[in-house]
This record gives sequence, C-alpha cells and structure tokens, in this order.
Amino acid sequence: MDLESCLPVWDRLTADQQRSLSTAATEKSVKKGTVLHSGGQECTGLLVVRSGQLRAYILSDEGREITIYRLVEMDVCLFSASCMLRNIQFDVTVEAEKDSLLWVVPTDAYRAVMERSAPLANYTNELMSGRFSEVMWLMEQVMWRSFDQRLADFLLQESALEGTSALSITHERIAGHLGSAREVVTRMLRYFQSEGMVKLARGSVELTDVKRLSALCAPKKPARHRQ
Amino acid sequence: MDLESCLPVWDRLTADQQRSLSTAATEKSVKKGTVLHSGGQECTGLLVVRSGQLRAYILSDEGREITIYRLVEMDVCLFSASCMLRNIQFDVTVEAEKDSLLWVVPTDAYRAVMERSAPLANYTNELMSGRFSEVMWLMEQVMWRSFDQRLADFLLQESALEGTSALSITHERIAGHLGSAREVVTRMLRYFQSEGMVKLARGSVELTDVKRLSALCAPKKPARHRQ
Repeated sequence: MDLESCLPVWDRLTADQQRSLSTAATEKSVKKGTVLHSGGQECTGLLVVRSGQLRAYILSDEGREITIYRLVEMDVCLFSASCMLRNIQFDVTVEAEKDSLLWVVPTDAYRAVMERSAPLANYTNELMSGRFSEVMWLMEQVMWRSFDQRLADFLLQESALEGTSALSITHERIAGHLGSAREVVTRMLRYFQSEGMVKLARGSVELTDVKRLSALCAPKKPARHRQ
Repeated sequence: MDLESCLPVWDRLTADQQRSLSTAATEKSVKKGTVLHSGGQECTGLLVVRSGQLRAYILSDEGREITIYRLVEMDVCLFSASCMLRNIQFDVTVEAEKDSLLWVVPTDAYRAVMERSAPLANYTNELMSGRFSEVMWLMEQVMWRSFDQRLADFLLQESALEGTSALSITHERIAGHLGSAREVVTRMLRYFQSEGMVKLARGSVELTDVKRLSALCAPKKPARHRQ
C-alpha cells in the first residue's frame, strides 16, 4: 500500500506538495512490543499504519497505563507528530501491538505542506477530531460507567479486533488498557467466570457468553454517536 | 473589542474572507446561566468571548455534569460549531457562567473560509489542540488523582478566576464541575474545614489556608507542561 492511498486528500495536493511528502516518507518495519514514540518531546513524525496494529496510551507518574486508542491498517497517528501541533501539551506513548509496517512522514515535511495547504490542514483537523472523540468517549466511560461494564466492553472490542473469542492476554495487560490494577481485573474476571460469561486459563480469557457480556456493557460504544 | 482582534490569523485572510466573516458575525449578549449550546446536533456557530465567562461541560444520562473547560475574554469556543468538524461525535453543553458579551460566527460562514484558507484551518487546529490538551489533563486527573487533590485544585483555580478567596458557590455546583455527587463534596469540604484549610457557610467556601491547599494538590495544573 502506498502513501497516496492512505492519505485521502492526496489528490487535492499540488504536484510539488505530493513530491515533498513522498520524498520525505520512509518505510519502517517494527516488531510487536516496540515503543515507537514516547512523550511530547520527541518528534517521531506522522505514522501511517500499512499493516499491523499500534496502541496509544498515557502513563501516570506511578507507571499505570490507560489505552486511549488503537490504530489499525490505514490509520494515521497524529500525536507521534504532536510537536507539530501548537498547544498540544500532553504525552502519549505509542507502541506496536503487533508486528507492523509503517510509513513515517517526518514532522517538518508534513508541517511545511500543511501550513500552505488548506486541504491537508483540514484533513489534519479531521484526524484530530476523530481522536478527540475517542478520548471524550473514554472520559465518559471513566466518569460514568462502572468497572464491570468497561471490562465487558474491552473484552468484546478485543475479541472483534482479534477475530476470536479466545483472547491471549494477561490480567496485567488488561489492567494497562483500562487504567486499573491487576488485582481489580482478576477479581472482576473471576466474577464473570462464576457467572459463566468467560473461562479463564493462564494467559488467556475465553468469552463464553457474548450475549450477556453485551447486555452488561450496553449502551455499547456506537451509542456515543447519540442523537 | 472587534472580531479582528480576537482572531489572531485575521491579517492572513484575504479581504474577501475577512468581509465574509465580519458580515456574518453577530453580537450576542447573554445573562449568567443561559445555555448557549447543547449537544452535538445544534449548530450554534463559533462563539468568541468579548467579555464574561463560559463553561463547557458534558452530561451523563443520569444528569451528572463535569466541567471540561472554561472560556474567558478573547477565548474562542470551537465545539459550539462542532457540526463543522467532521468526526466530532460527542456532546458538549456550553453555558454562560457570568453575564457575557459574545461574537457569534455562523458555522457555514466559518467553514466556507476554513476550507479554502490554510491559515484559518491551521488556527482551528491550534484551537482544537488546546482543548484536547485540557481534556487530556482532566482525564489524567480523573484517572490518577484522588478526590481531595482535585477538590483543592478546583478551589484554587476558582479563587484565581474570581480574584477572591471567598467563593460564592454551592456544594452542588462544585459537584457539577468535578463530576461528583454533592454528598462527596460536602464530606471532603468538612474535612478541609476541620483541618483549617477552608471555612464553610451557606452558599460559600472561604479559602483560609491557600498554602496547604496548594501543597495538597501538587503537582499543580502547570505541571502538565511536563518535560
């Protein structure tokens, strides 16, 4: 997949602008677990996912994590280029959740085009609004929903993302996604198991009653597009 | 204060673009308590604060509130024009916290200029990044900090905003800012009072030991600009 097909506004850039982006862009292949970007200081550049999966999360001073969004094929990671955006004052860490193949567009090249191109600036706006909506959704979750609902929701999302009901994931890792502690996750998963909704084994969680998990976490994620 | 001086990119717009914005903009004067915008469906337009103060907050299905940011003189409220931004899928309510004088720039007029003007699109980007940072800050608060820290922080901010250590504010109202319940606020304020940090009376909270309140809530808000 080439860079053009990942950037929907490509055709609205001038030939010069297209050239400067494609000349500057490099390919990068990373192994699962690689940290691609950490904190606000680095300027890694815009990351475009050709294949694989990335995770963006924030870290507390004590090392607790919470996932703020995932990026899959064709997604563009804006905050790895946050130094480009004036006023961004928070630190996001981005890691590869699967072996991934990326385009990296250096920040300077992207910014130079964005400053002159209304289409690219408006596209950047759309990217940011999308991420903003994900964070607001997460905020509403954290504020108004109980932990069992959030955990059920996470398991269902993960299952959809992985295309399987048998998830290879540790309780520690789930805690890192949800900004919680391992013990809290373990306790709730055991409760889910006692209710027949999941089956636990070392390093895995199998969803055995998707219907009840769904009922538990309703209103589900799409409900944020509320009328 | 005219519209030009509120929009820092004014001079980088063409004469035509300036004209279409200033022709479309209207003045609006609102009383304290007026709800200016609610939810994602309405398209109130871009609000520019000439004087007064606005508050943007989200609401849970059960009617709980949490303040996501405040807008004071010269601030621009983007999310009252969120219908303009593709991908924004959350509902923000905006109300006047003080009697306010505003410019309202209708969404269509703003969008028409933004689509052709890289400077205005990039400025809109900056506005959004600023709000995004505030929301991420809030997320970190909600996730990682205890309620006493958040309450102390709120009281200090409020005192700075009002220019007084004697705040006229109800516990109910504080709960609405922090996404909490009135009882929880009352209990914590009573504890603060027993520690000599505040003095409570009907409808008011007086800060009597700013130093200890500050120590309690450290790291303070500016700490989000962390290195």
